[in-house]
Amino acid sequence: MSQIETEEISLDEIYQLAFNVFSNHGCDAENATALARTVTNAERDGSLSHGLFRIPGYLASLKSGKVKGDAQPNIEQNFDSVITVDGNLGYAPLSHEKGLPVLADAAKRSGIAVMRLINSFHFAALWPETEFLAERGLSGIACTVYKPAVAPAGASKAFFGTNPISFSWPRPNKTPLVFDMATSTLAMGDVQIAAREGHSVPHGTGLGPDGKPSDDPAEILKGVLLPFGGYKGSAISLMVELLAAGMTGESFSYEAEKTDNNDGGPPKGGELVLAINPELVAGKGWADHSEDFLSHLKAIDGVRLPGERRHKNRLDKGPRKVNKELLSKVRSFL
Amino acid sequence: MSQIETEEISLDEIYQLAFNVFSNHGCDAENATALARTVTNAERDGSLSHGLFRIPGYLASLKSGKVKGDAQPNIEQNFDSVITVDGNLGYAPLSHEKGLPVLADAAKRSGIAVMRLINSFHFAALWPETEFLAERGLSGIACTVYKPAVAPAGASKAFFGTNPISFSWPRPNKTPLVFDMATSTLAMGDVQIAAREGHSVPHGTGLGPDGKPSDDPAEILKGVLLPFGGYKGSAISLMVELLAAGMTGESFSYEAEKTDNNDGGPPKGGELVLAINPELVAGKGWADHSEDFLSHLKAIDGVRLPGERRHKNRLDKGPRKVNKELLSKVRSFL
Repeated sequence: MSQIETEEISLDEIYQLAFNVFSNHGCDAENATALARTVTNAERDGSLSHGLFRIPGYLASLKSGKVKGDAQPNIEQNFDSVITVDGNLGYAPLSHEKGLPVLADAAKRSGIAVMRLINSFHFAALWPETEFLAERGLSGIACTVYKPAVAPAGASKAFFGTNPISFSWPRPNKTPLVFDMATSTLAMGDVQIAAREGHSVPHGTGLGPDGKPSDDPAEILKGVLLPFGGYKGSAISLMVELLAAGMTGESFSYEAEKTDNNDGGPPKGGELVLAINPELVAGKGWADHSEDFLSHLKAIDGVRLPGERRHKNRLDKGPRKVNKELLSKVRSFL
Repeated sequence: MSQIETEEISLDEIYQLAFNVFSNHGCDAENATALARTVTNAERDGSLSHGLFRIPGYLASLKSGKVKGDAQPNIEQNFDSVITVDGNLGYAPLSHEKGLPVLADAAKRSGIAVMRLINSFHFAALWPETEFLAERGLSGIACTVYKPAVAPAGASKAFFGTNPISFSWPRPNKTPLVFDMATSTLAMGDVQIAAREGHSVPHGTGLGPDGKPSDDPAEILKGVLLPFGGYKGSAISLMVELLAAGMTGESFSYEAEKTDNNDGGPPKGGELVLAINPELVAGKGWADHSEDFLSHLKAIDGVRLPGERRHKNRLDKGPRKVNKELLSKVRSFL
C-alpha cells in the first residue's frame, strides 16, 4: 500500500470550498448551503466516503441536468402523522432541512409520524436525518435504496442496493446514540475508497465478475457485494427496499437502474423516515430507564456504542487531513 | 444422530390437546383458546420451536403463579396513533387478539400507528402479529426482548436477548411476505432443539462457557449466543432492546433477568408493534408496484421469499408428525 499524501484544511475552508463549487455548478444559495453542510459534517465526523469524495458525483448530476440545483422541495402534511416531501428533482439535504422539522413536530404531538421523501437524489449518509430527530427527543429510523449492487442471499446477481438503514435513540443532554449502516457487508463508498487506496477488503464482502468470492475491491466493484449476515441481513435489505420504495411509491433499486442516466451521481429515489416519541409512547421516566441500560451496556469489556467514534471525531475542531489528490480535484471545479 | 420417534396427530387434535392442558392449569376459556391457537398455528407452519415444545414452559409459569391464566388485557388508545395494551400479567396471545385490531384500525385511519404491550409474557413467534397486520393491508414491524443470551459485538458476556424482529408486507389476494428472525445467529429454541436431538450447530453460532467458539448446542446453552452478522447484527439487536423495552417502558433483557423467577417460562416483558398503511403513505398503486418488485426478486435463481416455506407448510391440512416423547410429556399434563 502506498502512502497517501494529505493536506491540512480547516472545516470552515472545507465548507467554503464546497459551497463555492456547488454555487459554480448551478446550485442556488439554499441548495449550496445544505450540500456544503452535508459534506463538511461528514468530513468533521470522519465519515470520509460521504464527504469531499462525493463532490465529483454531485457535480456530474448537476451538469447532466438530472438533478436541479435550484429545486425547492414541497411539503405536504397528508395526515397528522404522514408527511410527503417532494424534492422536485433536487438533492436530498434541502428536503431534509425543510421536511424534518415538520416530521419532528408531528411526532412530538402525535407520538409517531412518518415522512416519505420522493423525487429526490440522496447521495449522503442517513445519520443526519436520524440524529436531527434524536436531538429533539425522538427515536428515528431512516432508510433508502440505490441501484442494484448486492446479491440477495442465495443469488449471485445484484438486485438490492446497498440499502442503508439508520436508527437513533435520544439521550437528553448527551450526544444521541446513532447507527447508520449499509445492509451490504461494506458500504459501496468504503469499497470505492479501498479500491482507490489499494487496500484489500475482508473475505465475504462480495463476489468478483466471475461470481466467486473476492477480497479485491476493484474486482467486487465489477462484480457484486453480499448482504451482511447471510439470509438474515438479506431480509433486512429486503425490508429496506419495501419501506424506502414500496412505502414511498418511489423506485426500487432495480427500477432506479433502468431510468438512471449513469452520469456518476445517485439515481432518483425515495427515503422513508420514521419518528417515534418515547415521552408519549413509553411515558415519563423513559430517559432514565434507557440511560441505565446504556450505562450497563457500555460497562461491558469490548463494547462501544454505535456512533461514539463519529461523535468523538466531532469534538476535534481543528483542521482535517484530506487526500491531496482529491482536494486538488475538487478545487479544479472552482 | 439417533432417529427421532414420531406420532401422527391432526391439527384439530393438537388444538384440543393444547386447549385442555391450558384449561387444566388455570387458564380461562379466552386465554386457553388464544394459547392453543398459537401452539397449533406454529405446528401447522412447521415452526416447531414455538409449538408443543413450549407447553412445559407455559405451564411452569402458570404453576408458579408468575403468569395469570385468567388475565384480561386492558386497551388504552392514548392518542390517535398510540395504543397501550396492558396484559395484566397474562400471556401475550390474548393481548394480541384484543389489541391488534385496535392497532390496525388506527393505522388504517391515520397512516401509521404504534402499539406497546406491557405486563405481558411473550413465549411465541412474532409473525402472528405482523401477519395479522399484513392481512389487513398494512406493513407491520414487531420486536421483543427476553433474558440475556447474546453477547454484544466485541464482548463475550450475554447482555442482549435473542431479540427477534418480524416484518410483514401486505400482498392483496396473496399470502403476505413475512419474516421473523432472532437477531442471534440462531434462535434459542433452535439451539434447544438441536441439543435435544443431538445435532451440532454452525460455527459462529455461539461461545461455550469458556468464552471460546463452539458448535455444540449444549455447550452454547451453558455459554452465550452471538449476534448474526457481527457488529451490524449487534446494532440491530441493540435497536430491538431500545424499541421493545426503552420505547415500551418495560424491562430490558438485563432487567428481566433480575426480576424473573426462572420457573422455565418467559420473563415479564414488553413488545412494540408498528403498523404502516401503504394506501395512505405511498398512495394508490402501491400494491402493483411492490408485486412487480417481488416477482422480479422471485425470478432470480436461488432466491426464496421469507415466509414461503412456512406458508407452504400451511397448505398441508393433514396430520403432523410430532416427536413422540414430547407428545407424551404434553399429554401427561392433562
